[in-house]
Amino acid sequence: MSLLQDLQWRYATKKMTGEKVAQEKVDYIIEATRLAPTSSGLQPFKVIQITDEELKAKIQPIAFGQSQIVDASHLLVFAAHESYTEEYLNEVFSFSERERNLPEGYSNDYKNMLWSKFAQQTKEEHFNHTARQAYIGFGLAIAAAAELKVDATPMEGFINEQLDELLGLEKLGLKSVTILALGYRDEANDWNLNMKKVRFSKEDFVINYN
Amino acid sequence: MSLLQDLQWRYATKKMTGEKVAQEKVDYIIEATRLAPTSSGLQPFKVIQITDEELKAKIQPIAFGQSQIVDASHLLVFAAHESYTEEYLNEVFSFSERERNLPEGYSNDYKNMLWSKFAQQTKEEHFNHTARQAYIGFGLAIAAAAELKVDATPMEGFINEQLDELLGLEKLGLKSVTILALGYRDEANDWNLNMKKVRFSKEDFVINYN
Repeated sequence: MSLLQDLQWRYATKKMTGEKVAQEKVDYIIEATRLAPTSSGLQPFKVIQITDEELKAKIQPIAFGQSQIVDASHLLVFAAHESYTEEYLNEVFSFSERERNLPEGYSNDYKNMLWSKFAQQTKEEHFNHTARQAYIGFGLAIAAAAELKVDATPMEGFINEQLDELLGLEKLGLKSVTILALGYRDEANDWNLNMKKVRFSKEDFVINYN
Repeated sequence: MSLLQDLQWRYATKKMTGEKVAQEKVDYIIEATRLAPTSSGLQPFKVIQITDEELKAKIQPIAFGQSQIVDASHLLVFAAHESYTEEYLNEVFSFSERERNLPEGYSNDYKNMLWSKFAQQTKEEHFNHTARQAYIGFGLAIAAAAELKVDATPMEGFINEQLDELLGLEKLGLKSVTILALGYRDEANDWNLNMKKVRFSKEDFVINYN
């Protein structure tokens, strides 16, 4: 199967069966997310993997009662850094230098240039940037799930602040941005299964400068 | 090849050969982007495909002189809607109703709920949301390119306002968010080719609530 076929197969599953997804498949989906490229390699987001049934039940009202929250096998919450700090940049580039056997301080010029930019920005601007990086990983998680024929529902419909509080994200410097619910479609009961996939035409979607 | 193998193969190509990528491969990459899921199916972004050499030469200084801008075969500029409007929501849901053979007005309750939320938000909040949707498509474009063994450089390093002006995006209600440069790696001259891919470990990346 090619990615295009996988993307045609997938849809936003609204009703799941409750069947469990094998952990090795979830691990594959998370690995695709971990490999996602990010701006300057900063990787300013985490994935929170939730299988605990009681916790899912607590999340459901925060997500306006949507059933896939509890019928999913795994919830992956994508949480982005609320801001950048100089300490974090030091950590990222030190790690990278060690991993690449580069001399300590090799990346200092680049790191200082980056920090001089971030230092002029607000925390809100930082978060807008970190959230975008999380969405690259989110796109790759969607592709990985479709490749494995695991159903995945991309979800922004939840109250972010309440989820952050429930998961204790603030003390980790993280803010939730989106959820991917992983499970299996309930073919008999999902109203969305047979809905035509609607996208603007290629002619409407692409602007050409040839 | 699996997506994970594709993602291990890819890297942020810094030096490209200038060799052209077959248009059918670029079409495949754009099609993956077009099929990306977006919040409420709003698809609030476009892809601007650039092959014109003079235009690429004008973009290069806007992107701090980076060589892949001119050595790439195609540039894909991802541009998100600067804001949502009620007219746009009407357009999206009318189109969806027609495509799905649903009665006109079938989606009105949902659409009105959505608009009542957007109407309370600033244009800046809208753009933060539209940009995130563009990044889902960006992630899928990266996956598609890697599947086809087309090199792709994700680029945020350019002056957005200047690119918007050059491409006339303001009058289209669009703002550039990122570029994917498509081409082929120059193996002899790309310093980044043999750099180890650095990612935080799975243990650092994932938070478990099991």
